Amino acid sequence: MRYRVEVFVTLKPVVNDPAGLTIRGGLHTLGFDSVTEVRAGKYLVLTLDETDASQARARVDAMAKQLLANAVIEDYRIELEPVGEPVGEPVATGDGSA
Amino acid sequence: MRYRVEVFVTLKPVVNDPAGLTIRGGLHTLGFDSVTEVRAGKYLVLTLDETDASQARARVDAMAKQLLANAVIEDYRIELEPVGEPVGEPVATGDGSA
Repeated sequence: MRYRVEVFVTLKPVVNDPAGLTIRGGLHTLGFDSVTEVRAGKYLVLTLDETDASQARARVDAMAKQLLANAVIEDYRIELEPVGEPVGEPVATGDGSA
Repeated sequence: MRYRVEVFVTLKPVVNDPAGLTIRGGLHTLGFDSVTEVRAGKYLVLTLDETDASQARARVDAMAKQLLANAVIEDYRIELEPVGEPVGEPVATGDGSA
């Protein structure tokens, strides 16, 4: 099954966020004074082929730990949705008779 | 009312994404061969005080158009949730008798 996985990487709340402060300053300069805080993070959308959803989630969790997020200063959150079979793969019948 | 607003900024599908390609290459090097595509974007979390949700959404939409996203090459999506009253603001009674 093919999955579309969203990974949200955010700075931990205790970590300074100079990019977020700069964006907030820019918004205030433009007149958007109601903004009290901006936190800037990364938004990654992965497409991958795995046998099932729990396998896909486990793989992306490993990717986040090894490469996508820096565990010292960042948190991450994963959201996953199936997007259908890869092209050319037969659909399982489910009764084992195929 | 205080709102927490998530803004997801993504490159348009037709735009090349060198950061995404680099991340995909790194994942393949680490053995995550099931990943077929990676798209890299920005994830911004804003906190702002507005009178109601539609007002808050309209303000953030204007912010995205003016500063947060580059409309030539990027798309954006907004998700909004109330997080309670700002400290010190009285709660409306709703019957106009206060």
